[in-house]
Amino acid sequence: MPVAAFNLRDFESHAFRTLPAAHWAYLNGSAADGDTASANQQSWQALRLWPRVLNDLRPGALQQTACTVAGRAMAHPLFLAPVAFQQLAHPDGERATALAAAAQGAGMVLSSQSSTPMEAVADIFAAEPDAGPLWFQLYWQGNLARSLSLVQRAQACGFQAVVLTVDAPVHGVRDAERRAGFVLPEGIRAVNLPAHPAPLGLADLLAQAVRWDDVAALQAACAALGLPLWLKGVLHPADAARAVALGVAGLIVSNHGGRTLDTTVSTAWALPQVRAAVPPGFPLLVDGGIRRGTDVFKALALGADAVLLGRPQVHALACDGALGVARMIRLLRDELSAALALCACASIADIHTSHLVPPPADNSLYA
Amino acid sequence: MPVAAFNLRDFESHAFRTLPAAHWAYLNGSAADGDTASANQQSWQALRLWPRVLNDLRPGALQQTACTVAGRAMAHPLFLAPVAFQQLAHPDGERATALAAAAQGAGMVLSSQSSTPMEAVADIFAAEPDAGPLWFQLYWQGNLARSLSLVQRAQACGFQAVVLTVDAPVHGVRDAERRAGFVLPEGIRAVNLPAHPAPLGLADLLAQAVRWDDVAALQAACAALGLPLWLKGVLHPADAARAVALGVAGLIVSNHGGRTLDTTVSTAWALPQVRAAVPPGFPLLVDGGIRRGTDVFKALALGADAVLLGRPQVHALACDGALGVARMIRLLRDELSAALALCACASIADIHTSHLVPPPADNSLYA
Amino acid sequence: MPVAAFNLRDFESHAFRTLPAAHWAYLNGSAADGDTASANQQSWQALRLWPRVLNDLRPGALQQTACTVAGRAMAHPLFLAPVAFQQLAHPDGERATALAAAAQGAGMVLSSQSSTPMEAVADIFAAEPDAGPLWFQLYWQGNLARSLSLVQRAQACGFQAVVLTVDAPVHGVRDAERRAGFVLPEGIRAVNLPAHPAPLGLADLLAQAVRWDDVAALQAACAALGLPLWLKGVLHPADAARAVALGVAGLIVSNHGGRTLDTTVSTAWALPQVRAAVPPGFPLLVDGGIRRGTDVFKALALGADAVLLGRPQVHALACDGALGVARMIRLLRDELSAALALCACASIADIHTSHLVPPPADNSLYA
Amino acid sequence: MPVAAFNLRDFESHAFRTLPAAHWAYLNGSAADGDTASANQQSWQALRLWPRVLNDLRPGALQQTACTVAGRAMAHPLFLAPVAFQQLAHPDGERATALAAAAQGAGMVLSSQSSTPMEAVADIFAAEPDAGPLWFQLYWQGNLARSLSLVQRAQACGFQAVVLTVDAPVHGVRDAERRAGFVLPEGIRAVNLPAHPAPLGLADLLAQAVRWDDVAALQAACAALGLPLWLKGVLHPADAARAVALGVAGLIVSNHGGRTLDTTVSTAWALPQVRAAVPPGFPLLVDGGIRRGTDVFKALALGADAVLLGRPQVHALACDGALGVARMIRLLRDELSAALALCACASIADIHTSHLVPPPADNSLYA
Repeated sequence: MPVAAFNLRDFESHAFRTLPAAHWAYLNGSAADGDTASANQQSWQALRLWPRVLNDLRPGALQQTACTVAGRAMAHPLFLAPVAFQQLAHPDGERATALAAAAQGAGMVLSSQSSTPMEAVADIFAAEPDAGPLWFQLYWQGNLARSLSLVQRAQACGFQAVVLTVDAPVHGVRDAERRAGFVLPEGIRAVNLPAHPAPLGLADLLAQAVRWDDVAALQAACAALGLPLWLKGVLHPADAARAVALGVAGLIVSNHGGRTLDTTVSTAWALPQVRAAVPPGFPLLVDGGIRRGTDVFKALALGADAVLLGRPQVHALACDGALGVARMIRLLRDELSAALALCACASIADIHTSHLVPPPADNSLYA
Repeated sequence: MPVAAFNLRDFESHAFRTLPAAHWAYLNGSAADGDTASANQQSWQALRLWPRVLNDLRPGALQQTACTVAGRAMAHPLFLAPVAFQQLAHPDGERATALAAAAQGAGMVLSSQSSTPMEAVADIFAAEPDAGPLWFQLYWQGNLARSLSLVQRAQACGFQAVVLTVDAPVHGVRDAERRAGFVLPEGIRAVNLPAHPAPLGLADLLAQAVRWDDVAALQAACAALGLPLWLKGVLHPADAARAVALGVAGLIVSNHGGRTLDTTVSTAWALPQVRAAVPPGFPLLVDGGIRRGTDVFKALALGADAVLLGRPQVHALACDGALGVARMIRLLRDELSAALALCACASIADIHTSHLVPPPADNSLYA
Repeated sequence: MPVAAFNLRDFESHAFRTLPAAHWAYLNGSAADGDTASANQQSWQALRLWPRVLNDLRPGALQQTACTVAGRAMAHPLFLAPVAFQQLAHPDGERATALAAAAQGAGMVLSSQSSTPMEAVADIFAAEPDAGPLWFQLYWQGNLARSLSLVQRAQACGFQAVVLTVDAPVHGVRDAERRAGFVLPEGIRAVNLPAHPAPLGLADLLAQAVRWDDVAALQAACAALGLPLWLKGVLHPADAARAVALGVAGLIVSNHGGRTLDTTVSTAWALPQVRAAVPPGFPLLVDGGIRRGTDVFKALALGADAVLLGRPQVHALACDGALGVARMIRLLRDELSAALALCACASIADIHTSHLVPPPADNSLYA
Repeated sequence: MPVAAFNLRDFESHAFRTLPAAHWAYLNGSAADGDTASANQQSWQALRLWPRVLNDLRPGALQQTACTVAGRAMAHPLFLAPVAFQQLAHPDGERATALAAAAQGAGMVLSSQSSTPMEAVADIFAAEPDAGPLWFQLYWQGNLARSLSLVQRAQACGFQAVVLTVDAPVHGVRDAERRAGFVLPEGIRAVNLPAHPAPLGLADLLAQAVRWDDVAALQAACAALGLPLWLKGVLHPADAARAVALGVAGLIVSNHGGRTLDTTVSTAWALPQVRAAVPPGFPLLVDGGIRRGTDVFKALALGADAVLLGRPQVHALACDGALGVARMIRLLRDELSAALALCACASIADIHTSHLVPPPADNSLYA
């Protein structure tokens, strides 16, 4: 019997009651005081829609939410964000989220810390003709050779792009996680990565952290493989411009869901700054705090091509496995449909910044 | 024994305790997180009055709240907004609200989803010599012929204007309603409309949604009938200007009480934008969040000719039927009287934008 | 045994527990939702002090809070505001507040709705050599003759100025008072006024409300008597300028403690606007929401010559009669002393607008 | 068994439960309503970080938090602020905080109201080769001779600078302290000062308060002793400029933790104003509300060379004595390390104002 969920927050309430406290602390926790995790949500919600009326909505109908992301047609602009160790949320783990994403036409970015072999996930997507994009998230493995070996294995089994995370050279101040005494339970681990002999100290982490010259080398290698390289975790226009100059395929505006550094700018604030710094049409995704169809609409109005969902997929997964995640995606897509109609947009392409009231220029709402 | 109510919010508290939960969820519910429903109220309250003193108030006296709306004299600038299925709130339904409105000189806009025959409502207004305007709210019926047939029936029994709702091509994300499992109880239905064979799906809704060319055709037809056509649900100045160009009689600035799309601009924010886009003297009404006489005063200071009351009429109706609604109207009118005197305005015509502190130009208070 | 009170808010907590609910509703209540009553307090508190250091404080010492108000030397810039029917708070009523004010060197403005004969209050002030100013608050009595008769009686027994209230032509929307069913108890009434045959209706109130030409006539009459005339309840610079042009002695910036019209501008917001509209050195007082010595300091920094205390005197009176009011005045004076020293001001004359951070010019903090 | 503390606020929660109420009221209390104490914390937190990515972090590693304060190398930019009577928090008092500071390489400013002989503290620092700076806080002793005698004694036993507090000519309105009836318990006193015969009254306090000419004289005397003189408690740029002109070694931007004057500007707001008023490179420290590594990062981005910790040292001291304070320092340093890495700063020197979103220029966030 599936949980009663009428919106994404309902899944969160159920998951909180369902999951062991330490798993919840890891999966849902955020850095320090949780200010950024909270501000991400509030910033989307605080943006005001300025709806239009009476436009012709007939062209929309079933194709209303259809869109193109980096040249690929999708049924809607929703991706599952990379989330590590999904077996913590549900025994089916990444298999369940992949089934749901593939069935619903959502994109999926598999974490390199997946608790499920990447090949199993790729097989699920391969079996679904209408599946969306399947991408592989990469944590830099200390050097190019090790990183590339992972990338090549992902490409071999069917992943279509690489998403390099650049905002997490260290783990972040995860008070909730430490307070709960979270450790990975027996049997759950990053099965696609070589086992670490021991956790790295700060000096080692800093020494191995990915750098601009690593990105350049990886970009060249990916180009040689014909594999698009995305960077995830860019918030500053200067970094965005530098990444574009290196030839990356796209950027994901993200603050890691507030899990690494607290009190950063919200992604709703950063997105238009980044959009202004990249060429017209350059592929941009955004994550962090998306909970409503109106949030998706606003992200697109501010220049994103699609959005990624992190915690909501975990919440739904914890509640009902693949079925929960599928319902979560469907709920959000339906809300987006309603938002489009109620703003008199026949399609995603009709969304425009003028559908938002301009926020104050002086940052007084920058939370 | 009538409920103890000293202001409009008191009726709300009583109604919440009185009504079945599912009826409350339908009647008082709003879209998604209720952000717009709440912001509507807060935005009026946040506006600051800058009172004047010592003007001559003698001319006011009993005619103090008298006003003219679209050329018609009224005792005060209060209308009952269209609310569907009022028998959900009280067995007397629309008969009760009509009795109260007529007795108090308020205008009334009957919903096309009235649970009472429109003729019965018209008869009540016809029997009261001092009744205010009686208008008919129209949901587009898929084509001009069906829509016009409803309009002609309304005109025939005495309705004096048509109010076409343009902000609800789809139903909105009504979480509370769905969570409560609301369905229309046996015996309550839209008696003035043909029974729907089955609820429409999204594709059909979008295909049948009213469009600008429909408005043009309806406007021409109404003009031929000598019936003023208003549009309800306009928030954007560009849409307002386009509607004016089509020759409509007036506009109602509304976000449907926050029941269709959440996180839209509040009506207090949108009203002056719309006022600036229409010709001087063009009839404008506004609804959403009006709970105090000072709210009415502020709406008029920002350019409205009158205001409409949605949920407050339902609350009062649920408490005490016609008597409750009449008391609600009277309370609000008395509060408006006090506000006029305390701003040293002898009459409605003395209300001016300079009675408000200009809100910040940068939208930092746009909630 | 006096109540334990370490600041003005402590008296409020005690009084709330002490007074009958209906008396509390009348004495402490405010108009409508209490937004203005609350904003008055918050607006003072929200202003930020920008302290200086290391100035020579020796000249200050005991004369630190000494000041001059409209040409008269005072030990400190504190007045008791006019409050009606003080026997509702304590059997000793206005006798107690007068004893406290006289003993502490505070000014006092006796309400024309005093429950104690004005002569008794005047006698108390006459008996105290170091007493501050004693003024008489006047509600317009419908015409000049009746008003003047009251003024002359006040002058005869020793009152030194008249304060005409101009912001209360009607009573205001006092929900709390009506909900509590407040009526004046047997034995408490406005003993200095002729008994009203019956409460006046709105039409009569508006017809008798004081007007600019009445003020001109009263000013001429007071000038002939050598009695300074103040206006209380001015918020708008245009009204202030007009009053100055009529020759009044001073103005009290006030919104009646939020008891008449709700959601007006706060007095902290209005004060600098009024100061900018009157000649340099023109006497200005302010009331509404003053609870701390820092509030007094801020009011003086924004251009007030002194402040008046309304509810705090009632709270202290209800707690401990004259002793309570005396302690309240002393507490506030001591807090003002500390604020002066901690801003490195040797005296009141050293207070300057530059001791405040300029609030935003765009009204975004205008609550 | 040490308390479970994962961040600085955890120590506060434990200390609140551990300390006698009156000690808590004194140690943690603030002036009046605690508005400034609270705003200090909120203002740091409200500042938004704008992180960069992918810079080379290898140079950082173990020397990542190393910095130079007024010419002296330190392992990190953390100081313990002067706090009086630390035996109120823990029997080990200042010995414990000194042990912790010395072991962790933090600077320490010993209060002249230390409950421990200054020589004992100096010995602890002398015994630790990697100890940070040890400074002596001075309350003006009424005249230069008495003040200098204290300074010379401090220099003799090893203190390396003098910090003159200039923001506390009087005690402040400490409601919580008075409500709790706090008095120094038997056996705890300012052992380095001559016993006061009796508490001073206001007139005496004002007469003895330190003045600009005293600072000039003290500065000359300290220069002769080769001892740097800092001023603590400066918030206004004009005062900062004047102090610089007198030749002081550095300034501490402080509002005394909100313990003297309530509703002052927060130190996060004042810091950049003061930085703009002093020469480039002029030593500036700041305290008040620092609770997170990101707060330290922000303070440095706004122009501070280091920060001081007041209440957090008391909380940790109350919990676990020297061990608690050492853990508190270490936690904060680790958080600063994480913030550096996550903003892609290899070292303190890489921190720049551009890592912060500019706050609104109009003070609308000045709380």
